[in-house]
Amino acid sequence: MNHLLEKIATKEVFPGFVGRFIHTQTMTFAFWDIKQGSMVPEHSHLHEQVVNMQEGEFELIVDGQPHLLQPGMVFTIPSHVKHSGRAITPCKILDVFSPVREDYKF
Amino acid sequence: MNHLLEKIATKEVFPGFVGRFIHTQTMTFAFWDIKQGSMVPEHSHLHEQVVNMQEGEFELIVDGQPHLLQPGMVFTIPSHVKHSGRAITPCKILDVFSPVREDYKF
Repeated sequence: MNHLLEKIATKEVFPGFVGRFIHTQTMTFAFWDIKQGSMVPEHSHLHEQVVNMQEGEFELIVDGQPHLLQPGMVFTIPSHVKHSGRAITPCKILDVFSPVREDYKF
Repeated sequence: MNHLLEKIATKEVFPGFVGRFIHTQTMTFAFWDIKQGSMVPEHSHLHEQVVNMQEGEFELIVDGQPHLLQPGMVFTIPSHVKHSGRAITPCKILDVFSPVREDYKF
């Protein structure tokens, strides 16, 4: 099935985190536009998460360790590992989750 | 774990399809640089596949139906569905597979 990203409705899931979502049987793709300064508090989940930096700079704190993410970087977060983050600049990020994020089905 | 794409070794898996690979517990990320005119013959696999068009134009034939993929498009191929393709221009594509592509562990 072909998905045109710009045709997918957006949802502001956390303040400043505006996402478009595609779900398959086993994965969820979250295409985020993130406003500068927006933060996601520490949390964890069963799902594996792969953070694909597309534009901007994002500080990702994983298990207490800070990482400065920039385009060309891909960060893999294992299942159940605590993480939080902050958009240092406006960012575009693709997060891929497995299994599906049922809580991102709107 | 942080991966810098440019530091990942490349592998030419099919003629003209040069990939960098990241494997998690449940997924494989294949970052392709594809030469213009390169083709992948019809095949299918258990894995779900999500094709993220980043640069260029790619003709993807799925279950006998042709689709012209361009940047901003995301194509989801279910498990076991036959597909083939051809790079109309040089392309950059991110393919995400679930479960892991053991055959892409080099």
